[in-house]
Amino acid sequence: MASASSSKPFLAALAGERQAKPPVWLMRQAGRYLPEYREIRARAPSFLDFCYTPAFTVEATLQPIRRFGFDAAILFSDILVVPDALGQTVSFETGEGPRLDPIEDAEGLARLRDEPDWEKLAPAFETLDRLKTALPSNVALIGFCGAPWTVASYMIAGRGTPDQAPARLFAYRHPELVAALIDRLVEASAEYLIRQIAAGAEAVQIFDSWAGVLPPLEFERWCVAPVAAIAAKVKAKAPHAAVIAFPRGAASQLSKFAGMKGVDAIGLDTAVEPAAAIAALPDVALQGNLDPLALIAGGAALDEGIDRVLSGFAPRAHVFNLGHGILPQTPIAHVERMMARVRGA
Amino acid sequence: MASASSSKPFLAALAGERQAKPPVWLMRQAGRYLPEYREIRARAPSFLDFCYTPAFTVEATLQPIRRFGFDAAILFSDILVVPDALGQTVSFETGEGPRLDPIEDAEGLARLRDEPDWEKLAPAFETLDRLKTALPSNVALIGFCGAPWTVASYMIAGRGTPDQAPARLFAYRHPELVAALIDRLVEASAEYLIRQIAAGAEAVQIFDSWAGVLPPLEFERWCVAPVAAIAAKVKAKAPHAAVIAFPRGAASQLSKFAGMKGVDAIGLDTAVEPAAAIAALPDVALQGNLDPLALIAGGAALDEGIDRVLSGFAPRAHVFNLGHGILPQTPIAHVERMMARVRGA
Repeated sequence: MASASSSKPFLAALAGERQAKPPVWLMRQAGRYLPEYREIRARAPSFLDFCYTPAFTVEATLQPIRRFGFDAAILFSDILVVPDALGQTVSFETGEGPRLDPIEDAEGLARLRDEPDWEKLAPAFETLDRLKTALPSNVALIGFCGAPWTVASYMIAGRGTPDQAPARLFAYRHPELVAALIDRLVEASAEYLIRQIAAGAEAVQIFDSWAGVLPPLEFERWCVAPVAAIAAKVKAKAPHAAVIAFPRGAASQLSKFAGMKGVDAIGLDTAVEPAAAIAALPDVALQGNLDPLALIAGGAALDEGIDRVLSGFAPRAHVFNLGHGILPQTPIAHVERMMARVRGA
Repeated sequence: MASASSSKPFLAALAGERQAKPPVWLMRQAGRYLPEYREIRARAPSFLDFCYTPAFTVEATLQPIRRFGFDAAILFSDILVVPDALGQTVSFETGEGPRLDPIEDAEGLARLRDEPDWEKLAPAFETLDRLKTALPSNVALIGFCGAPWTVASYMIAGRGTPDQAPARLFAYRHPELVAALIDRLVEASAEYLIRQIAAGAEAVQIFDSWAGVLPPLEFERWCVAPVAAIAAKVKAKAPHAAVIAFPRGAASQLSKFAGMKGVDAIGLDTAVEPAAAIAALPDVALQGNLDPLALIAGGAALDEGIDRVLSGFAPRAHVFNLGHGILPQTPIAHVERMMARVRGA
C-alpha cells in the first residue's frame, strides 16, 4: 500500500483507506465526449502532435477536472508514445486507430532503440510538471503507460485487431522474440513511469487492455510477470508513488495479482463481480467498474449500475471508475448525474 | 448427466464417464479450412442456400469425419437460421458476416412471427435424419442453436459488432423489449432443439458466443436464465439427449452454471484454466479448450497446448475441443498432428 495522504481522497483510497464516498475519476475522462476537447484537438495537425505539445495536453488534462471535479487528473497522452520513442514508426489515422510499422522478425526488433528517446517523451514530463501546480490541492495526478503485452500486441500487428489474434499467433510462433520485446518494454516502461513520478505524478496506472485475450499460461508469462517487474522497479526508485494495474478482461485470473509486491490497486473491467474481486484480491484497493454503456444509456440503467458498484465495493478501499474508457457518444448530462449520485451516496 | 452409451465415446463422456483418451471434435470442424468444403460451398449461390440444402449440409457435416475420424459430427447450419425462420431478413455478405434487418423498437419485435416457420427449418431436420444412418456407428450426432442473448445481439444490431456493444446499449435502454425477444428465442430455440433431437441429434449444444461481454447481473439475466430455461424444456421432452452449454468468455462466472438442471456439459473457451473450471463446475463434463491460434501455429506451441488441455482436464470427464471455432487458415497437417497426439496420449 502507498502511504496515506489525507488531503487527497484518491491517494488515501490507494493507501487502503475505505471512504464513505469513494473518490472518482474516469478512464479517458479527457477526450472526445467533451466539446472543449474537440475544440483544442482540432488545432493540432495530428494526434501525436497533440500528445507532444504541453500547451494542449495540460489543457486537455484539466478540462474534465474543471467541468466535473474529479478526484484525479490523468496525464493526457497515449500508450503508443513508448514504441514511438523506441524508434518504431507510429501514426494515428482519423477514425481508424493507430498504425505502426509492424515488427515481423528479429531484424524488426533489432531496429528498435535499446532505450527510449527521452527527448521525445520530454513533453509528458513537462505536462506533469505544469499540472502539479495547476491542479486543485485535493486532486491527485496520475501518470501511466501501456503494459508490455498490450503495447507489444500493437507493435507486432501494427494496428488494433480483433482480440489481437495476430500478436497472439506471433507469440506462439516466436516466443523468444516476444520475450525479448517484452523485456525491452518492461525496462522502458518502468523508467518512463519513474520519470513521470519525478516530474509530478503521484500515482501511475499500467493499462493492460489486451490481457484478457491470453490463455492462462500466456497470461502469466506476458501479462502478470511483466507488470510485476515494472511495479517492482518503480517502487524501488519511487516508493512513495502508488501503482495501479489494470488487467482488462482478466476477471477469472485476478488472483494471480494477489500479493503482487508494489501494486497498490487493481483496476477492474465491467465483467468483474465486486464480491469476486474482493475475495480474489485480499490486500489491495479496487478501482472500477461501471459499464461505459450504462453511462451512455442513462436513466434507471445508469442509477442501478452506479448503486451496484457502490454497494459491491463498499467493504473495500475503492476508487469509483468505469470498467473501460468513457465513449465519445456519452452525454455530458449523464456524467453529471453520475457524479451527483456517487458524491451524494 | 445423460445416460451412458458405451459405443460412442463422446456420449459416454457427456454422461460423466472419464476416459483415458478423451473423445474429440472441433467447433466449426466443417468449414473453410477444408478444400473439400470450399469446393461444395462454391456450388451454392449463398450461404443460407447452402445451409438449407440437405445435399450440401449432409456432405459438409460428413467431410471432417471422413478426413479426421472425429468422435462427433455436428449439423452444418448457422445460429441465424432461427431469426430467419422467425421472419427477420437475414443474409450473409461474403467476407463481411451476417446482415439482418435490425430490430429497433416494439414494432420491429411485433413484426416477428410468434413461432418459427418450421418449413424453413425442415432442411436441418432432414439433414439430421440422413446423417443418422450415414455416420460410423461410434460417431455421435450433435444438433445446436445459438443462445438467446447471442442471437438477440445480432437481431438487434443487425450484424456482428465489437463486443456487441450496440445490443448491450439497447438492453440498457429497453430491457422490457429485450426480455420479450429473449423469451421468444427461448421458446423457439427449445422447440428447435427438441425437433432436432426427434430427427436424430443425440446431443445439442447451445452456443453463447457473446456471453462474456455482459456484466454480472446482465449475464445472469440474459445468459444464465435463458440457457437454463432451454435446457429444462429440452430435457422435459427429450430426457435421453445430452445438453452442452457454451458460455464463451464467461470464465469468471462459470459457477453460475453449477448444478444447472438439464445441462450435462459446459464448453470452455481458451481463457479458462482447467483447474478453475473443475472447481467451479463440480457435476458436469467439460469440453474444450485448445487455443485455435495454437492449432494454426503448430510445432511446440501446439504440442504444449494439447498436453496442457489433456493433463488439465484429466481429473474430469472431458471432450477435447478448441476454445473457439477452428480458423480458416488452419493447416490440415496441424489438425492431423493434433489428432495423433490426443489419440496417442
